Amino acid sequence: MNASSPRADDLAKRLTAFMNEHVYPAEAVFERQLKEASDHWSELPITTELKAKAKTAKLWNLWLPKAHFAEGLTNLEYAPLCEIMGRSPIGPETFNCSAPDTGNMETLILYGSEEQKQRWLPPLMEGEIRSCFAMTEPDVASSDATNIRTEITRDGDTYVINGRKWWTTGAPDKRCKIAIMMGRTEPDAPSHKQQSMILVPMDTPGVTVIRPLTVFGYDDAPHGHAEVSFVNVRVPASNILVGEGRGFEIAQGRLGPGRIHHCMRTIGLAERALETLCRRALTRKAFGKPLADQGVTRHWIAESRMEIDQARLLTLHAARMIDEFGTKAARAEIAMIKVVAPNMAQKVVDRAIQICGAGGLSQDFHLAYAYARARSIRILDGPDEVHRETIAKMELRKHATGGVDAGSNV
Amino acid sequence: MNASSPRADDLAKRLTAFMNEHVYPAEAVFERQLKEASDHWSELPITTELKAKAKTAKLWNLWLPKAHFAEGLTNLEYAPLCEIMGRSPIGPETFNCSAPDTGNMETLILYGSEEQKQRWLPPLMEGEIRSCFAMTEPDVASSDATNIRTEITRDGDTYVINGRKWWTTGAPDKRCKIAIMMGRTEPDAPSHKQQSMILVPMDTPGVTVIRPLTVFGYDDAPHGHAEVSFVNVRVPASNILVGEGRGFEIAQGRLGPGRIHHCMRTIGLAERALETLCRRALTRKAFGKPLADQGVTRHWIAESRMEIDQARLLTLHAARMIDEFGTKAARAEIAMIKVVAPNMAQKVVDRAIQICGAGGLSQDFHLAYAYARARSIRILDGPDEVHRETIAKMELRKHATGGVDAGSNV
Amino acid sequence: MNASSPRADDLAKRLTAFMNEHVYPAEAVFERQLKEASDHWSELPITTELKAKAKTAKLWNLWLPKAHFAEGLTNLEYAPLCEIMGRSPIGPETFNCSAPDTGNMETLILYGSEEQKQRWLPPLMEGEIRSCFAMTEPDVASSDATNIRTEITRDGDTYVINGRKWWTTGAPDKRCKIAIMMGRTEPDAPSHKQQSMILVPMDTPGVTVIRPLTVFGYDDAPHGHAEVSFVNVRVPASNILVGEGRGFEIAQGRLGPGRIHHCMRTIGLAERALETLCRRALTRKAFGKPLADQGVTRHWIAESRMEIDQARLLTLHAARMIDEFGTKAARAEIAMIKVVAPNMAQKVVDRAIQICGAGGLSQDFHLAYAYARARSIRILDGPDEVHRETIAKMELRKHATGGVDAGSNV
Amino acid sequence: MNASSPRADDLAKRLTAFMNEHVYPAEAVFERQLKEASDHWSELPITTELKAKAKTAKLWNLWLPKAHFAEGLTNLEYAPLCEIMGRSPIGPETFNCSAPDTGNMETLILYGSEEQKQRWLPPLMEGEIRSCFAMTEPDVASSDATNIRTEITRDGDTYVINGRKWWTTGAPDKRCKIAIMMGRTEPDAPSHKQQSMILVPMDTPGVTVIRPLTVFGYDDAPHGHAEVSFVNVRVPASNILVGEGRGFEIAQGRLGPGRIHHCMRTIGLAERALETLCRRALTRKAFGKPLADQGVTRHWIAESRMEIDQARLLTLHAARMIDEFGTKAARAEIAMIKVVAPNMAQKVVDRAIQICGAGGLSQDFHLAYAYARARSIRILDGPDEVHRETIAKMELRKHATGGVDAGSNV
Repeated sequence: MNASSPRADDLAKRLTAFMNEHVYPAEAVFERQLKEASDHWSELPITTELKAKAKTAKLWNLWLPKAHFAEGLTNLEYAPLCEIMGRSPIGPETFNCSAPDTGNMETLILYGSEEQKQRWLPPLMEGEIRSCFAMTEPDVASSDATNIRTEITRDGDTYVINGRKWWTTGAPDKRCKIAIMMGRTEPDAPSHKQQSMILVPMDTPGVTVIRPLTVFGYDDAPHGHAEVSFVNVRVPASNILVGEGRGFEIAQGRLGPGRIHHCMRTIGLAERALETLCRRALTRKAFGKPLADQGVTRHWIAESRMEIDQARLLTLHAARMIDEFGTKAARAEIAMIKVVAPNMAQKVVDRAIQICGAGGLSQDFHLAYAYARARSIRILDGPDEVHRETIAKMELRKHATGGVDAGSNV
Repeated sequence: MNASSPRADDLAKRLTAFMNEHVYPAEAVFERQLKEASDHWSELPITTELKAKAKTAKLWNLWLPKAHFAEGLTNLEYAPLCEIMGRSPIGPETFNCSAPDTGNMETLILYGSEEQKQRWLPPLMEGEIRSCFAMTEPDVASSDATNIRTEITRDGDTYVINGRKWWTTGAPDKRCKIAIMMGRTEPDAPSHKQQSMILVPMDTPGVTVIRPLTVFGYDDAPHGHAEVSFVNVRVPASNILVGEGRGFEIAQGRLGPGRIHHCMRTIGLAERALETLCRRALTRKAFGKPLADQGVTRHWIAESRMEIDQARLLTLHAARMIDEFGTKAARAEIAMIKVVAPNMAQKVVDRAIQICGAGGLSQDFHLAYAYARARSIRILDGPDEVHRETIAKMELRKHATGGVDAGSNV
Repeated sequence: MNASSPRADDLAKRLTAFMNEHVYPAEAVFERQLKEASDHWSELPITTELKAKAKTAKLWNLWLPKAHFAEGLTNLEYAPLCEIMGRSPIGPETFNCSAPDTGNMETLILYGSEEQKQRWLPPLMEGEIRSCFAMTEPDVASSDATNIRTEITRDGDTYVINGRKWWTTGAPDKRCKIAIMMGRTEPDAPSHKQQSMILVPMDTPGVTVIRPLTVFGYDDAPHGHAEVSFVNVRVPASNILVGEGRGFEIAQGRLGPGRIHHCMRTIGLAERALETLCRRALTRKAFGKPLADQGVTRHWIAESRMEIDQARLLTLHAARMIDEFGTKAARAEIAMIKVVAPNMAQKVVDRAIQICGAGGLSQDFHLAYAYARARSIRILDGPDEVHRETIAKMELRKHATGGVDAGSNV
Repeated sequence: MNASSPRADDLAKRLTAFMNEHVYPAEAVFERQLKEASDHWSELPITTELKAKAKTAKLWNLWLPKAHFAEGLTNLEYAPLCEIMGRSPIGPETFNCSAPDTGNMETLILYGSEEQKQRWLPPLMEGEIRSCFAMTEPDVASSDATNIRTEITRDGDTYVINGRKWWTTGAPDKRCKIAIMMGRTEPDAPSHKQQSMILVPMDTPGVTVIRPLTVFGYDDAPHGHAEVSFVNVRVPASNILVGEGRGFEIAQGRLGPGRIHHCMRTIGLAERALETLCRRALTRKAFGKPLADQGVTRHWIAESRMEIDQARLLTLHAARMIDEFGTKAARAEIAMIKVVAPNMAQKVVDRAIQICGAGGLSQDFHLAYAYARARSIRILDGPDEVHRETIAKMELRKHATGGVDAGSNV
């Protein structure tokens, strides 16, 4: 059901083997190195090591889209690989397939000028630097992009940027060298033409990482999420992506594949949680029998299996739709998986925590952190409610014409 | 996503047109004729008329399996047709595709002797007679087939049957001429060898339809569900299917496609409920605006769309599994759709009722009856709990070997 | 927790004994008499018999409010009695405590003129006649009372009524002699002053019971729910309640105690469903052990117990609020129980049905009918959504003043 | 509904004023001091300051039980105070009313010898030292107390203790001077007589705090939860509580009031989350209107209000039951609130997070931490499943006798 080509099948097999041999065993090492690191915001030795091994194993930049790279994959081929990588919090970066870098690279490929591509794509594709995407702003509901207040003002050959962003993932990371930023160039244009995207090197004067933000107590170091201020930041006018007022258009184009990736990682996370649940249930006894023999545990296992399989099928269906008909035609499906996958994962992980007992809440299991990740996806990239609204609007539109009543007499 | 071959696509299109032109408009006629009928348990004129039209339109016996009929369809091809027919309670019979007849005919095709087939298949395939499947017994949980107590005893060239069945769907129908009955031939055999299936003509002395049973107040006339007693019922020994002790085996073989059919019909029912919900929401106003503009309504529409699409994808996936690998390999998937589809439909229909207000509970809408159908599927053919148990068992088995830990360090 | 006075305790004990001795055993008799009745809409002999016994046992008109009758009870005292009666569909009428009669009698007591009271109260309190409340209209969302379109026009000493109502509970009943009807007297007044209530004897020319409506498949005979048309119906001007434009005010005043009664009956219904669930689970075996020993069954029992107890405590709390501070002060609590009680009952009954298997859907158990009742309460007297809106509005109002922030720093 | 005596009313008023004036404003100070502290596991200056103020305000040791202290309160009186304190994570300690100290002090009062009381009660009641309760063990499901493996062996005038505990809340705190520990004295006794409780001063040789555990990403410093090892720890024989084999008995006696406290704190936490939700919804705009005007937000507010009120009424009911009939008679109610309160709080806080957007996940709001607390209560002190089992067992017992059928004919 997952793999759709012999090549993707082969990659999936090798990826799984690599995860088993190198990635899962490295998780504890990562935790230890992070704890002992004098600097929380720099690449850890274990990460450098894993990346080198992945390159050697030719499991690098698997995200490359077939549409632009001969060696690339379709969304449907890449999706199951994304699931495998997403099983571990340190999986995606190992293979240079982590957010927000893949989305940012894809944005550069689709919308960057030659100069922009030459400057930024090579080090990103080599995994030498990282990037961030600065869109969300404090104090407003950024899911409504017309709320965005950061100003990008033309001044001769430069743009001057003033504003404040938060939840800029990756900004605290010392390797993060470039931000794609969204801000308002034309406050008086129609609402979907007000915003632009622009490249801002992180070392530009006036860019300040104010503080890291936590997610349920986790700071996600060394990558992290930051509040960032932009005060009279000047960048060359050529840093604009495509042109003024094209911000929404770029955001839309960037949208589809990124959602597939996020959702498939979340499904991987849930699948692993279910495995942990089952294994723990088989070995943990209470009141004379393993938890796995108790009815409620079995009920949860069945529910989890049904929910995971449905979410995966829906996400693969969306991937196929994008491949065949494009992002716009798949809009409803993309909105659906953005709601379905994290809500599903939240439920599955919650059950796994319950079966693992207090340990499941702690650093001894991957579950509490997985919960924090799943929960945050329900908000990041647009909250559930915004996507449900998209789905409802498209559903109602089918019936709003007052045309022929196809198949119902009421 | 639905159709998997040009031929199935064409059938879907013609079927939809037929439903719009003939079936939906006939629903009210059916209700009126039933109300005015002097005999509740005979075929209504409108049904006779619809069947004739369907035959003429070459939309007859669409269920024929490709494995046994040149003109047949795979499960994956038939599934979307089943969904379309299931949108109306009077849909499936119109096309001679209704339960339990399709399952019974399939059983005869797979397990019947030549004599059995020649006697019963032609009139069933012509829609001249109907059939029933007598398995469930009162007072015991029949989902555990070892609970079945009806006795089938060999006596020379005949079998003598004594027992009591209920929820024998179709038994009150005057057109019902033949029962496939499950009973115990060998009480001392291992539990899965105790049961046999046997053909019992409904006019055999000793067969008595005791009373019709209602489902939420509906008697489902003229088809119905009955309590049936078998007192010293004698049938020729040649009426046994395959042989003594093969009851379980037949039940298993009959299982897969029947589940697909039931689930797809249920998805059709839910899809139509969502359409009714949307249309009603667009036209019904409260507190100054249409219900369709109110947030909770839109939330329900989005949830319903996501649930329906996921259930459909899972059912089509199960259909494909059966087609490619057989019923046994698809056991988990078959169990999953049996749980997912009716639970989903119950939720969607409940929301549609709420949007329609009190009318939604009444005879003026198809919803209350759809609810009763969806709810009963959660019990008939094995309750949810039995299928969840199957799923959990298979999931735990993956981890029970204590073998290599694939992909998790806990 | 339930009873709040020695007198209420004593009544509860006697009521329970009466239910056990007379009412539960009469349920099957009622069903049989109804089935065999030549006229579906007249009082059955068993009902006459039960009413006579209840009168003799001094368990009659227990609903009388203490505020107006020396022998009356507070809402808090009456609530547990209401729960006991509500356990059986034929319970409330036995004791002359059934809807809509209690609400109508209370309305007459509170808002009726002396003449109106003398004419209608005695036969209602004796159980000689019944009444109906005609408010809901077809085609509109009547939860928004400004949607009501029936016209009540003054013409000299009479009012002329034209309109159509449905879901007029009790209207098909031959004993129903009087309707309290809501309609529009002043289309140009402010929206809450447009409506009036008026008494309409059912035998007035122009009043026609068009047809009975079903709830799921039940017609609730001999009481029933009807669509009723009013064509040039003339009644004396003195039939108006209180005065023109007072319809909303009366509806509000009528509201509180009626809700308590409905909710407590629903809690009784749920409590009995849980009993049935437990008893059935203890005796029904599947896969080698009673359902009561299976984890999911026990989970359901625990959930049901927690939900029932919470709903009961909330309803008793609302009763106490009404008794102490009046209907208006208890508005949020009254809205809450209207949502909580039927939603809870729907869940509990659904679980009980599942444990009882297919039988639970049929006429052999009280469950399917109980489900239909619980489900319909989520719509009648205002759908869930309207009551949730009331609750939310009152909650938000606490914070809307922008005043001192009591207890939160965010 | 909350307050049950003029004195409790007065305390509630003063407590609320104190929270507003001193505690909420101190939350940010606490966070800052903790971040800047050289030692994470010592009392912070702000805590010392708050405690002094609370003593001066005579809001100190409010938990004292009326049964043992003239100035004490009943459970019903104390419950609403507990709710107020529980609104802030730093609330309970401010008033010397925090877990596990109140439970430990109550245990000493009920089961301690004179010597034990004189040694430990005064510094605990003064807030000079803190205590911990060492029961849960790694690797086993400690909800089944027969799984406990720590050994307490008599050796002359001493007991020798060997074992390992985890989730010992408060153990990392430098102020923690005394542990009440549960371990096995008599492995061959009947299962409920195997365990004993014993006092272990934390500075006894052989007691080692191995590591702090995190809940989601929080370490709950300076109090914390620890893994603690006991290697040949020797304490005087007089440190045993009551006597060998009395561990279960003490655990039971300790149980009731502690549950009430925990649940009421959790209700306070949920109530505050709802306030934050409402305030945020009133000020945060998306798509042209405040979130508070959007239907789903209002639905959530209504659901939250209904769930909180029901949970509070159930907890107060349990408190009253304990006060009137004792812990044993209130066993079902105590089990119910242990399930209801944290599950309710988890839902309410999750909704509040969603309304606050990404900020709700971070350190800027009290919500993510509140979520972690609510979630952990579903496991600590026995997971949901164990309490549901208790409830189900007691419910089924009502029907198991096969006695008279009270009120149901099926």
